[in-house]
Amino acid sequence: MAQEERKRNVYLEDIPLVEAQAVFQEALQAANRWQPLAAEEIPVAQANGRITASAVWAKISSPHYHASAMDGYALRAQDSEGATETQPLQFTLVDDWDDTPGEPRPMRPVNTGHPLPPWANAVVMIEHTQQVELPDGRSGIEIRASLPPWHHVRPMGEDMVATELVLPANHKLRPVDLGALAGSGHATVSVYRQPRVAIIPTGSELVSTENVAERGIQPGQIIEYNSMVLAAQVAEWGGLPTRWPIVPDKSEAIQTAVRLAAQNHDLILLNAGSSAGSEDYTAHVVQSLGQLLVHGVAVRPGHPVILGMLETGDWGLETDDQSPIPNRQSQIPIIGVPGYPVSAALTGEIFVEPVLARWQGQRPFQPPTIPATLTRKLNSHMGDDDFVRVAVGEVNGRFVTTPISRGAGVITSLVRADGIVRIPRFSEGADAGSDVTVHLYRDARDLAHTILAIGSHDLTLDLIAQFLAERGGGRLASANVGSLGGLVALRRGECHLAGSHLLDPETGIYNQSYVRRYLPDEDVVLLTLVGREQGWLVPSGNPKGIQGWEAAARQDVQLVNRQRGAGTRVLLDYELGKLGIKPDQVPGYGREEYTHLAVAAAVASGAADFGLGIQAAARALKLDFVPLAHEQYDLVMTRQTYESERLRPLLDLLHDDDFKTAVAAMPGYDVSVMGNVIEISTAKQGGSPI
Amino acid sequence: MAQEERKRNVYLEDIPLVEAQAVFQEALQAANRWQPLAAEEIPVAQANGRITASAVWAKISSPHYHASAMDGYALRAQDSEGATETQPLQFTLVDDWDDTPGEPRPMRPVNTGHPLPPWANAVVMIEHTQQVELPDGRSGIEIRASLPPWHHVRPMGEDMVATELVLPANHKLRPVDLGALAGSGHATVSVYRQPRVAIIPTGSELVSTENVAERGIQPGQIIEYNSMVLAAQVAEWGGLPTRWPIVPDKSEAIQTAVRLAAQNHDLILLNAGSSAGSEDYTAHVVQSLGQLLVHGVAVRPGHPVILGMLETGDWGLETDDQSPIPNRQSQIPIIGVPGYPVSAALTGEIFVEPVLARWQGQRPFQPPTIPATLTRKLNSHMGDDDFVRVAVGEVNGRFVTTPISRGAGVITSLVRADGIVRIPRFSEGADAGSDVTVHLYRDARDLAHTILAIGSHDLTLDLIAQFLAERGGGRLASANVGSLGGLVALRRGECHLAGSHLLDPETGIYNQSYVRRYLPDEDVVLLTLVGREQGWLVPSGNPKGIQGWEAAARQDVQLVNRQRGAGTRVLLDYELGKLGIKPDQVPGYGREEYTHLAVAAAVASGAADFGLGIQAAARALKLDFVPLAHEQYDLVMTRQTYESERLRPLLDLLHDDDFKTAVAAMPGYDVSVMGNVIEISTAKQGGSPI
Repeated sequence: MAQEERKRNVYLEDIPLVEAQAVFQEALQAANRWQPLAAEEIPVAQANGRITASAVWAKISSPHYHASAMDGYALRAQDSEGATETQPLQFTLVDDWDDTPGEPRPMRPVNTGHPLPPWANAVVMIEHTQQVELPDGRSGIEIRASLPPWHHVRPMGEDMVATELVLPANHKLRPVDLGALAGSGHATVSVYRQPRVAIIPTGSELVSTENVAERGIQPGQIIEYNSMVLAAQVAEWGGLPTRWPIVPDKSEAIQTAVRLAAQNHDLILLNAGSSAGSEDYTAHVVQSLGQLLVHGVAVRPGHPVILGMLETGDWGLETDDQSPIPNRQSQIPIIGVPGYPVSAALTGEIFVEPVLARWQGQRPFQPPTIPATLTRKLNSHMGDDDFVRVAVGEVNGRFVTTPISRGAGVITSLVRADGIVRIPRFSEGADAGSDVTVHLYRDARDLAHTILAIGSHDLTLDLIAQFLAERGGGRLASANVGSLGGLVALRRGECHLAGSHLLDPETGIYNQSYVRRYLPDEDVVLLTLVGREQGWLVPSGNPKGIQGWEAAARQDVQLVNRQRGAGTRVLLDYELGKLGIKPDQVPGYGREEYTHLAVAAAVASGAADFGLGIQAAARALKLDFVPLAHEQYDLVMTRQTYESERLRPLLDLLHDDDFKTAVAAMPGYDVSVMGNVIEISTAKQGGSPI
Repeated sequence: MAQEERKRNVYLEDIPLVEAQAVFQEALQAANRWQPLAAEEIPVAQANGRITASAVWAKISSPHYHASAMDGYALRAQDSEGATETQPLQFTLVDDWDDTPGEPRPMRPVNTGHPLPPWANAVVMIEHTQQVELPDGRSGIEIRASLPPWHHVRPMGEDMVATELVLPANHKLRPVDLGALAGSGHATVSVYRQPRVAIIPTGSELVSTENVAERGIQPGQIIEYNSMVLAAQVAEWGGLPTRWPIVPDKSEAIQTAVRLAAQNHDLILLNAGSSAGSEDYTAHVVQSLGQLLVHGVAVRPGHPVILGMLETGDWGLETDDQSPIPNRQSQIPIIGVPGYPVSAALTGEIFVEPVLARWQGQRPFQPPTIPATLTRKLNSHMGDDDFVRVAVGEVNGRFVTTPISRGAGVITSLVRADGIVRIPRFSEGADAGSDVTVHLYRDARDLAHTILAIGSHDLTLDLIAQFLAERGGGRLASANVGSLGGLVALRRGECHLAGSHLLDPETGIYNQSYVRRYLPDEDVVLLTLVGREQGWLVPSGNPKGIQGWEAAARQDVQLVNRQRGAGTRVLLDYELGKLGIKPDQVPGYGREEYTHLAVAAAVASGAADFGLGIQAAARALKLDFVPLAHEQYDLVMTRQTYESERLRPLLDLLHDDDFKTAVAAMPGYDVSVMGNVIEISTAKQGGSPI
């Protein structure tokens, strides 16, 4: 049995990525599926974006006759010899003409595109002629300059000559290519058939977006959107996706869906159930309908990937009414796609794209890369190829890159990613400051317009991002690491600006003393973004009656705290210190969240009873707010950045009435201070307004 | 009248491009048409590639509850304190639990994605537990390590918190964005309506590709394909194109088509009739239905561009059954697109794309650019902005660029172009060797795999291009300038290899003496591509009985010659010299063509009676061939190029049986010499085989 299992290439443990890809490719080769799909002949007008399946040679020349390139008169160039301003030559207008000696010089009117008469070999522009009366009384044409042969003539074949190569095979057709195909006499073109890909979402816990919109959602229900992402990926890669309805976690139901899909698709993506849990049927289904090649790949995120081949020949299913695919093989590949959304999307990029490319005669897509300096240490599991989503910024003329959330469930980590850093197997990661290669998701030129903000998060940053995008002047990317983290990032040249609201306990002044301490050798500008209110976020109605800073010491309620270095944490510690309350007296002090909204979410879900945060976060999640303090939120940046072109759109925004109105509409925000500037230079010890 | 005309912004002469663009934009602004189109709400699943019309904020958090991140058991982290390998802790399995003192430690089985019970705050993986019998006889679970709070839990809002910014406005949706939208509770998304663009081809001389396929084509007929190119462009730029059937050159018919199209489109492209010829109705039609803003723009190719605004309100047309567009304005823009295919395609890029981008909240597309050295002097008309199609090669570590055919009718100049060099108005061009900016049509990375061949053309080069494309190993770009021109380009470092078949009259040996003369200081490799037959190309049946070299001196037949520096021209001159025939004794000697196929085309069209060329060119155009001589066609390159990675795929091809078979199938080709190598180094005076 073990012997037989091995023969069937079954892996029940993670195998390395390259090995998994090789096993899959071998199986596809053995099944004659590692080659372009059959060609189909389609009208040229519908062929944009499709891939030529064979070289195209011109059927006819273009032009297919000697054509006039101007509105004017066709003539024989040799008849024009000797014509000058002072000695014009006169021509007879003819319909037809043969070369009888003694005839006057012939000319025939032609428009652009008209064929030249067989006897003519040049065209004179109408603007360069004059109507005259000839000696014999007929009307004629006079010219005052001689013409070389083939003047203003587009000779036959100028563009393409019949039999010439118009386009090679494996060429992705662009709009102008359609013109060349049609112009060389082709009404149709042979292109590869588009791969048909079935995407089958499975899982009893899944609900569709439509259902959620109609009926809301219950805890434990998961919105099914992987099939949407995979279908859009497949379409972008030239395939024709079919999204299956959600199939419940029942082995029979999944088997039936797979069998049906196999009738008229080239590839099946089964999502998810690819792990080894009590309701993970994918491996079983693949094994029962064909061959399980790989179960588990050492790649993060994404490791419970399943690769297999289905036998399609002998199921005795009735022919269904969907059109069968041409040249169908007896085996088709199936991929068990993991359920976590980041894993699912990356499985698409790593395993699906190369197959679709191969089937259309293309090489796998290689994203553009740039070298960048890593801002934080990156730990990686040694056994895995690790695909780390990163933000990239161009700061002081070099690219710096910061890892974004590593969670496989965090789809926004892909949405916000500027690219991917691949940490290969057998590496434990990369140190801060080391050089890495970023595989970009966006045009590198976008990065020149991107303002990278690292530090404390404020909802106003979201509004800035939104307004900049709407006005098309630039882009704001932000990472939340708290106020102190932002100042450190700024010192290291890892960002353009740091959002900060750090209270100096001694002076009661925000940010300035911290900037002097953390950025001692820089000319720094503090730009006030907003004033805002901090207070307790509590459940609606404040059932536990939480009031004042002293509530932190109550033993019957659980706090949710912010992370070390956050301005809100500094404020809490400062106020607790004033009251003489020690951290270990505060239940829940150790539970840290990274944003105001995350604190609000903890309170909203009942995981905590209260937390310190801003009023807008309370309103966002329909919580009550107990005001405690006013504070100032500044954007900190170097003077060089402050004066740069890159920052201009953001500075303009701070004096924009629409923007101010939008910020002021958020509860607890004071925009009267917006745009105030404090300059702190290395020479000066005090901050001074500029 | 003149007064009134001026008020209506009528230009009957070419105006500068920037001025034309400004006039058009002003008119669009005045008509409220210089802003994004109305938004429409569409299902998220259909939104890939569309542009968000407003910022999207999360409706629900994701996860929307605290979710188990693993298959295992939910528990209270504090209950696990103190568990070790030697001191395991035991838990009771419960369905529900409330915090009554004295109850045993509770645990509940959870799968990945399940909600955590309200009392739990951590999950232990099933692999780290063991089933045990509890003291009271019930079955329980044992763990051997303590867990921190929130271990293996995806807290509510880990990915997105309700009210958070998911995506800004004016964002082009990608597959992963659909996931974020759906995951944050959106079943639909507000995107800009796609611009509807009517494309109306006009011209009595036009025939459709379908007609050509069925009935063939007559001189004077032109295959209509501009509408195909424009429609594909519009679709690529996010619009919805409607291709109109061909409208004959009748003012009434064109008016009717424009009025109909204006009922349910946002933009009309009228092609062509935009010049001032006797059958050019476009300006008249625009004037009669609205306002003619611009007639003629100083841009090449493309200058007879028409820009106008149509009044759509008061024509009293019956509502037709196509759906009217929402928020239709009373004025819509119309562009008269010139008829030459290159002009038409560039008019799309210059005038149509920016409008469609604006209507979808995007900035106009900016192609990537690279700096490159110009290999040939580029003359430009001083009054015009000149868009010159160029080939680009990376030779010896720098980019070099060569203009391709300038003809506005040569669509292949766009097909083959790697990019565009823009020569601004008020410049007369650029000198050879000067630095220019190339606006790229292709990924700059493709250029690293491109072999640039400049020199004599042979049909085998087309086959090489085809085979390389099919095998995906590289790309061959070639420009035809004749054998000598190729050697000069090679000396200047403007190409990787030069095709050459230059006969040394003294020795009868091909190419070697020319290489020594033109590349005296280089280590050069001559790689023989083919042996081939040269002879007279004559009409089928050889009606004029052309035989032998001496036919060149016949006064009753017209020759078509090759250009100076072509190997074929050298051969002809050599043989004529041997016979004592002088050029001025040869009728037609002065008419020069640049390729074998162009010579064949001249003979096929009756423009000449015979010309010297290769047999394959004769067969291509169904001519007869009178054999005269055997010759050798070599690829000349530096030793450095010969040994480079870039050339490897081509070298492999010369030893490939499939390729040799394809070449040998062409008449008059000898592949027995293919791949022979002659090395000529600066040290040696004789060529020696290596």
